[in-house]
Amino acid sequence: MSLPNSENATTLENAMQLMIQTFHKYSGNEGDKYTLSKVELKEMLTKELGSYLGRRCKCRLSVEKIMGDLDSNNDGEVDFTEFIILVGALTVACNDFFLDGLNVRSEHPWKTR
Amino acid sequence: MSLPNSENATTLENAMQLMIQTFHKYSGNEGDKYTLSKVELKEMLTKELGSYLGRRCKCRLSVEKIMGDLDSNNDGEVDFTEFIILVGALTVACNDFFLDGLNVRSEHPWKTR
Repeated sequence: MSLPNSENATTLENAMQLMIQTFHKYSGNEGDKYTLSKVELKEMLTKELGSYLGRRCKCRLSVEKIMGDLDSNNDGEVDFTEFIILVGALTVACNDFFLDGLNVRSEHPWKTR
Repeated sequence: MSLPNSENATTLENAMQLMIQTFHKYSGNEGDKYTLSKVELKEMLTKELGSYLGRRCKCRLSVEKIMGDLDSNNDGEVDFTEFIILVGALTVACNDFFLDGLNVRSEHPWKTR
């Protein structure tokens, strides 16, 4: 299984590549190149998800809370699987927001978890 | 929380939007517009993930197996959260493959789950 090169990647493959690229863009900045330290996590949250998290990603306590929630193996770092869980949760929240906008959820309350 | 329009979306926001768009592109084809039926799931797997799943996404049994694995609430449909779990798992597998290519995992076997 390898990543098709971008030109012939499908929309979904493109999304997957963008997530991998984004993680490695920040994880490689300090310490372990394949995990996000607290500093790297804060930079990624601020630069990549600022419009979702707003001021929360600038506030140390919030970053520590997010780090605590993500760091399921308690090694003080966020690895790729923990990062994908964050992105997945935010994407589901966005889709719910999108369905709210379409007034779908009020008609189909079971549509969401 | 809303999706920033694409021009000023970050790489990660772009990936999230692509996943939402892809799901709704196929879920809207028949039956419930906000879930993937078996037919819609097969079409999505074939067109979007053909290079990952190869022949498996054309074979009825494999699609049923994937549907069975994804359909955690057993309603015979794949909802958005179940779809994101599939994409997340495939993305982690791709990242592992990417790290294998860099001979990272042999040096850091704990790097993966």
